[in-house]
Amino acid sequence: MCGIVGYTGKQEAAPIMLEGLKRLEYRGYDSAGIVVSADGELRLTKAKGFVDDLSKKIDGGRLTPGTTGIGHTRWATHGKPSDENAHPHVSCNGKIALVHNGIIENYQKLREMLISKGIEFKSETDTEVAVNLIQYFYKGDIVKAVSEAALRMEGSYALGIICEDFPDLLLATRKESPLILGIGQDENFLASDVAAVLKYTRDIYYLADDEIAVISPKDIKIYSCDLEVVKKEPSRVDWDISAAEKGGYEHFMFKEIMEQPEAVRKTLSPRIKDGRIILDDIELEPDYIKGLSRIYIVGCGSAYHVGVVAKYNMEKLVRIPVEAVLASEFRYASPLVDASTLVICISQSGTTADTIAAMREAKKLGARVLSIVNVVGSVIASESDYCLYTWAGPEIAVATTKAYSTQLAVTYLIALVLAESRGTITSAAYASLVDGLQALPSALEEALKLKEHIQYLASIYFNKENIFFIGRNIDYALTLEASLKLKEISYIHSDAYAAGELKHGTISLIEEGTLVIAMASYIKLVDKTVSNIVEVKSRGAEILTLTTESGLNHVTHTSDNIITIPDIHEVLLPSLAVVPMQLFAYYVALMRGCSIDKPRNLAKSVTVE
Amino acid sequence: MCGIVGYTGKQEAAPIMLEGLKRLEYRGYDSAGIVVSADGELRLTKAKGFVDDLSKKIDGGRLTPGTTGIGHTRWATHGKPSDENAHPHVSCNGKIALVHNGIIENYQKLREMLISKGIEFKSETDTEVAVNLIQYFYKGDIVKAVSEAALRMEGSYALGIICEDFPDLLLATRKESPLILGIGQDENFLASDVAAVLKYTRDIYYLADDEIAVISPKDIKIYSCDLEVVKKEPSRVDWDISAAEKGGYEHFMFKEIMEQPEAVRKTLSPRIKDGRIILDDIELEPDYIKGLSRIYIVGCGSAYHVGVVAKYNMEKLVRIPVEAVLASEFRYASPLVDASTLVICISQSGTTADTIAAMREAKKLGARVLSIVNVVGSVIASESDYCLYTWAGPEIAVATTKAYSTQLAVTYLIALVLAESRGTITSAAYASLVDGLQALPSALEEALKLKEHIQYLASIYFNKENIFFIGRNIDYALTLEASLKLKEISYIHSDAYAAGELKHGTISLIEEGTLVIAMASYIKLVDKTVSNIVEVKSRGAEILTLTTESGLNHVTHTSDNIITIPDIHEVLLPSLAVVPMQLFAYYVALMRGCSIDKPRNLAKSVTVE
Repeated sequence: MCGIVGYTGKQEAAPIMLEGLKRLEYRGYDSAGIVVSADGELRLTKAKGFVDDLSKKIDGGRLTPGTTGIGHTRWATHGKPSDENAHPHVSCNGKIALVHNGIIENYQKLREMLISKGIEFKSETDTEVAVNLIQYFYKGDIVKAVSEAALRMEGSYALGIICEDFPDLLLATRKESPLILGIGQDENFLASDVAAVLKYTRDIYYLADDEIAVISPKDIKIYSCDLEVVKKEPSRVDWDISAAEKGGYEHFMFKEIMEQPEAVRKTLSPRIKDGRIILDDIELEPDYIKGLSRIYIVGCGSAYHVGVVAKYNMEKLVRIPVEAVLASEFRYASPLVDASTLVICISQSGTTADTIAAMREAKKLGARVLSIVNVVGSVIASESDYCLYTWAGPEIAVATTKAYSTQLAVTYLIALVLAESRGTITSAAYASLVDGLQALPSALEEALKLKEHIQYLASIYFNKENIFFIGRNIDYALTLEASLKLKEISYIHSDAYAAGELKHGTISLIEEGTLVIAMASYIKLVDKTVSNIVEVKSRGAEILTLTTESGLNHVTHTSDNIITIPDIHEVLLPSLAVVPMQLFAYYVALMRGCSIDKPRNLAKSVTVE
Repeated sequence: MCGIVGYTGKQEAAPIMLEGLKRLEYRGYDSAGIVVSADGELRLTKAKGFVDDLSKKIDGGRLTPGTTGIGHTRWATHGKPSDENAHPHVSCNGKIALVHNGIIENYQKLREMLISKGIEFKSETDTEVAVNLIQYFYKGDIVKAVSEAALRMEGSYALGIICEDFPDLLLATRKESPLILGIGQDENFLASDVAAVLKYTRDIYYLADDEIAVISPKDIKIYSCDLEVVKKEPSRVDWDISAAEKGGYEHFMFKEIMEQPEAVRKTLSPRIKDGRIILDDIELEPDYIKGLSRIYIVGCGSAYHVGVVAKYNMEKLVRIPVEAVLASEFRYASPLVDASTLVICISQSGTTADTIAAMREAKKLGARVLSIVNVVGSVIASESDYCLYTWAGPEIAVATTKAYSTQLAVTYLIALVLAESRGTITSAAYASLVDGLQALPSALEEALKLKEHIQYLASIYFNKENIFFIGRNIDYALTLEASLKLKEISYIHSDAYAAGELKHGTISLIEEGTLVIAMASYIKLVDKTVSNIVEVKSRGAEILTLTTESGLNHVTHTSDNIITIPDIHEVLLPSLAVVPMQLFAYYVALMRGCSIDKPRNLAKSVTVE
């Protein structure tokens, strides 16, 4: 999503902002811009496209001298990607400039009010409404003006503001959209993400909802929305920037696929001690676990797909009803949540707006929230009752791979702990699953050896325009992820169906040469899936089947091509089966010449509803 | 799905069978065939395509004289549609002919066994295995041979059998696939569906699982699988054949769309008395309702989509967790079912194999099953604990319309009865919803008046190859049905997404000119949906929005075209919103020249897994 970087200090601001914006590129964007305050005026530069395009326009910053400024990368929500719609936006009298992440929901009402007061607008954006609203309230006290505007805006937003009358001051405020303040020596920073400032400082403040920050080179002051001073302790960030490099591969996505054995090992091994699962990080009392009546698993995109796999597995192992639900649907569906409900929130970034909203709704209704998050100290990690981190390291490619795999690994741990505590698993079954977990990282290494075979399959199928994924049970759950992976980076229209459901309508789309990818790893249902394969095959479909070594002889006579993964404990099958599907998506996108790490229209972490 | 018709009596068999097969055409098929027993031999004719093609081949029956025979329409499962794979199949020695609905799951094992005994096969089909298995056991007693074969076959099947040595005898057996026996005067009938024999008789026996029927012109004998005589009472069928005609419209689908106000009225009005919902047909004790802990709603295709709408509405009204689940997934997912679980099974035909299996699993696990079914006396209606019939009349078009609408109407009734009994609805809210229900049929008539506008919209959009449906909450539930309707008859690749979820991956498929149909009838979330509309619009999508009169001014500035339905109680919105979407699918398919009532690859009722 959009990124914000601000600087005030003794150095030239533009090069620092360009560097910060580059660090935020992985979040996805379609235009960029900066404003620098110099000689009592605001100088604005904007460019559709990449940060490099912006940098060229200002000769790396040499054309925009000045020591205070704000920069922005924009992912379009209101208005198309264009120079004009890029941020910063300037107020109608030219005195105030502003960058904005998020969506101001009541912008049309505010816009009409401002028009009635004589303010003219150049664009249709909610951002221009925000900056003019501040101008409207500005009578000499800019902090007061920001607070008055913030009180009137609804929705989710993070704002970085600069005013001609205060040339070395940055202002910021936020609501349900992240902002951090970086603490330097005679210089200070503002950013939507720590990655933007790590080169300069590791000491930061996390700004909370409705707080207002006033940043000068020497000082950072934080106020409540009623302008009372807020005292805050700085946090220290331990991240390693170099971990976010591509490490010799052509794409971050491929690197991250290859890192999965290690990421899963790091996530699992500290939590397996002497054949037992020990979740040191969290404390779920036995009485609480026994009293649980339901579990919700909430997430978006791939994180939701983790929830669907976990639903199948947890219901089998723990015998509690589990509902996997899209975060964007959870909040407004009158969810049936009380103190006996555990809500598991899954988010790589920990800043997914839909998931944050769902988490807060669940807490308000009295549930405890257990989060599975990759970014330490992020909103979801901080606000949830318990957090189990996935130790995947920074994930840069927009299409998630290692975050998915480590999230899945954590769900196995949770299922085992709950099942043991509720007495729904025998000690033999427990031990067998723990053995499986310990074998998982090396099994993943085996699965990765399929890459040349998958590359060959991709070379056969990459020019298909429609692909159907089918599967039953956990294989169905996996088709959701396999299909999403393919479509988000290759732009092939693919969809996932429960194998037994296809004949109830969608089978009418199958014609001569349609590719159907059948996931048939779950041996108990492989013959049922074969029946559905036969249905589509007899209508002309080409069949690519994924199965295990044990399943192989069940599928040979009905498949045109086969991917065989190693045998493993049935609960863990999705962890192995997803690997060839990630590789398939990668190679298909590569052969189609797509922008793999940053697919069109997509953002890494989605911080708007 | 496949259809079976058999005749033995004094008349010519072939014309009667052709007539019966015509009556079964609405079920969907791709080839047809008959066998007639005459002069001590079996005469076989098969044809790929329609019953008319078969009829031409035998000059309306004149080329195949004889008074005993079996006919079949086939919907391909094993092997492609072709003359060769059409039924009947004849055993290797030519003595036995057989027609078969369903899937014999262990056919490969049986085939290998028979090959090892020297039997030769002409095809790869499971049907040829069945007929040769009977031949293998046949040593002069054909009934015994059928029973031995039936004992060894696994899966679901209905078989009609004829043997050279018994020229006026029909045999039949079944397992999880319907068969009925029609009782005539010096003539008797066999069929997979009463519609095939209604012209000749209204007195029928329903054959049960594993029973064997031996039918001669004078007599019908029914045996258990151990060949003990079974006594059965005949049933009388009251159906009106003429109700199944197109009534002046070009297609059954259009006729059935137009019949919805009447069908919903017939379904609702007998159950609303003096402002109260009275479900005379079933008896749910107050203690049972109070003790309910969960509800599953099980169905396939559109029936499942009814379940998704009902989940949203019931959870809001009744405050019990409701899970809508695909029937094909329910059975194998270790469902959490006990005596405090109500399982609602939805099926138009009452013979959907996946739903039957789910129902039986639920009953085995101790739940009560409440079914919503359109066909009186069908398997699901008979075997469920309670049945609420949808009084939609026969539905002929493969794409369901009035069955969906009446099923939805029944879910409102159930929600109201449960909510009242559990005290989760105020009497004012109850009364307001009952008022809404009473107004629903005339509101549906209003919605149908949109047909010219929808025809115009279809003329703009019918050449799109990919269409996305988005919506939130009940509008999301409706997008599932809107998308299925469109794709099953127009073969356009369309898919349904929760509006807030698109940005988590699928939005990468949106490009200049992609059509996005936004369902925004639910006023509480219309502005949230508009935010998502703006996201796709700013990436070039064309927007067709469906909203209510109240929602109109929220969506005008972001939509290229708008469909406006009348305002109605929010719970009932999906009933109105589905109508323009059915019409849209119909007109688009019409303009694309598709076979509307019988889309390719599809069958009306799906009686295999």
